[in-house]
Amino acid sequence: MKITCTKSDLLNGVNIVLKAVPSRTTMTILECILIDACSDNIKLISNDMELGIETMLFGEVSRNGMIAVNAKIFSEIVRKLPDSMVTIETDDNYQTTIRCENVVFTIAGKRGEDFSFLPDIDRTKSLTLSQFSLKEVIRQTIFSISDNDNNKIMTGELFEIDENILKVISLDGHRISIRKIELDTSYEKTKVIVPGKSLMEVSKILSGEAKDEVNIFMTKNHILFEFDSTKVVTRLIEGEYFKIDQMLSGDYETKLKVNKKELYECLERGALLIREGDKKPVIINIRDNTMEININSVAGTMHEEAEISKQGKDIMIGFNPKFLMDALRVIDDEEVSLYMVNPKAPCYIKNEEESYIYLILPVNFIA
Amino acid sequence: MKITCTKSDLLNGVNIVLKAVPSRTTMTILECILIDACSDNIKLISNDMELGIETMLFGEVSRNGMIAVNAKIFSEIVRKLPDSMVTIETDDNYQTTIRCENVVFTIAGKRGEDFSFLPDIDRTKSLTLSQFSLKEVIRQTIFSISDNDNNKIMTGELFEIDENILKVISLDGHRISIRKIELDTSYEKTKVIVPGKSLMEVSKILSGEAKDEVNIFMTKNHILFEFDSTKVVTRLIEGEYFKIDQMLSGDYETKLKVNKKELYECLERGALLIREGDKKPVIINIRDNTMEININSVAGTMHEEAEISKQGKDIMIGFNPKFLMDALRVIDDEEVSLYMVNPKAPCYIKNEEESYIYLILPVNFIA
Repeated sequence: MKITCTKSDLLNGVNIVLKAVPSRTTMTILECILIDACSDNIKLISNDMELGIETMLFGEVSRNGMIAVNAKIFSEIVRKLPDSMVTIETDDNYQTTIRCENVVFTIAGKRGEDFSFLPDIDRTKSLTLSQFSLKEVIRQTIFSISDNDNNKIMTGELFEIDENILKVISLDGHRISIRKIELDTSYEKTKVIVPGKSLMEVSKILSGEAKDEVNIFMTKNHILFEFDSTKVVTRLIEGEYFKIDQMLSGDYETKLKVNKKELYECLERGALLIREGDKKPVIINIRDNTMEININSVAGTMHEEAEISKQGKDIMIGFNPKFLMDALRVIDDEEVSLYMVNPKAPCYIKNEEESYIYLILPVNFIA
Repeated sequence: MKITCTKSDLLNGVNIVLKAVPSRTTMTILECILIDACSDNIKLISNDMELGIETMLFGEVSRNGMIAVNAKIFSEIVRKLPDSMVTIETDDNYQTTIRCENVVFTIAGKRGEDFSFLPDIDRTKSLTLSQFSLKEVIRQTIFSISDNDNNKIMTGELFEIDENILKVISLDGHRISIRKIELDTSYEKTKVIVPGKSLMEVSKILSGEAKDEVNIFMTKNHILFEFDSTKVVTRLIEGEYFKIDQMLSGDYETKLKVNKKELYECLERGALLIREGDKKPVIINIRDNTMEININSVAGTMHEEAEISKQGKDIMIGFNPKFLMDALRVIDDEEVSLYMVNPKAPCYIKNEEESYIYLILPVNFIA
């Protein structure tokens, strides 16, 4: 194989595929990036057996071929090359020579044919949205997946398509995050559970521009994100997702409107006094149009008051401040509405249109 | 005690004294910041028994007194307070109440009298230079102290004053760094060994502005840095510093002039192929006006050529690239001169005036 491309294109491609190189694996071939060159088509490919990434590299192919090179060393070398044309050439013993100006590196490569290629994805079930929307919806829901593998389904997010609505849902046993996106056209009804870790990597590669699109293809076992010159394929999580609709309720006894930033900063201050392992809740005491926030931990006490507008009953309710903060952080509205029933029932943060719903379970406390 | 000040002044002061709060200690009082208020004079003090910092806080004292508060919690609370006036008040049980707008924190303090105050420093032997010069000279030498406590003296830097010259020296057994600063006036001959760790903390607090001054006072056992409204005192390291002059030599067989940035980037590329624990040197081969740099490690090989201007003999010599890079990183000249004798003798990087001298020992290699 012999190819030539610019250092910046190469680095850009390498940085994309690095996202699917496992940091620890027993299969050394997976620690590699595959460079696959045929005609004027150069692909960089990585695959950790759950997530796979393929990106096209603009360049010239002087000799077809493929080579797998250690991702860590190769990416470090590319990063430090002068900003100029790079030639990569391999010999029959998989020795890979990287030339750039007056710099010559030689590293040992591996047989490309031993690499695990990405699965072919059937392109019948598809969906198109902007990179901006996809990146945002991941950010707005990913924090409430579970990182505990005991319940595999909780480590993923539900992507549910119904007509022209994409609903993305995550939950971890303490809270549920739901975001709805309106799509340009209607699509066939579909539900898939996408691994959260893969979504985080996808989100890092997405440009986040509203004008750039991403095409999503779904099969029984895989989901493919296709955007710019990159394809990201990930296995789906098998199983039936939780019946969310049964957990949601529109009833409430108390409805508050509060300034999001003020509430966030107040919770942040309260959280200071909670040490890891210490399960102290912040206690929110709503009386008339005042919200008192109290915390009382081994480290000290905090008391703070804020004005709010309230409908319905007074209430005293306890929360893990982190859960409220996680939801508030990803809401862009200046004012948020909180809906509560009683100190044992879930609290909802949602807007009128319900384009977002954050359900958070309260924590028991001794007043 | 009762004091009032702005949040930003308080945060600024706390951030300064935090530098001398030990992260781990068996004396819990040392994990505290002392707030010492009398008349219109508020001091924040921290002390890890080697390094002590005292900074004046602008504010109003309503009731004299002092209190020691846990530095970690207190600093986190201050950081998260609204940007407004802060009142700190203590009661007879050392409960400390921090009020800011509608926020009230209460944390347990400790008796201020139990705190280890800073030693009184005699102010006869002094020295004045700009904060810029001191911050720079620390940065330009601190990397070659030893972090190994086996030889305590190597963990410090020699500050040597002779007439109007301040010489700062550090060494770690593989290399020596020497920087000279011309002072405005002449001072009494003095030599002190200052702990490197303390210098790093001092350097973080210094503004680095050429127009701001720092006064330095030295006694037999301590050095005091006084600048802005802050005093930093540190114990000196006892003992006799190494006789540097005997190690330096002006003779050379080969003198090179090279572009600093090019040489640095080339060494950086070579260093990529050296894994931790692998002691492979970069081999520099000077022939006529060409410098070849080669590295050959288990990870691969690198070869690079650069044009140089040379006086004297050809030479092939090996180095730990890190040591050369550390020195090059802190030299501001575009071109640097390297002086070499033979592959077993030290290499010098220095300028004509010898305002800097970096001595680096070569590494044996098999050509």
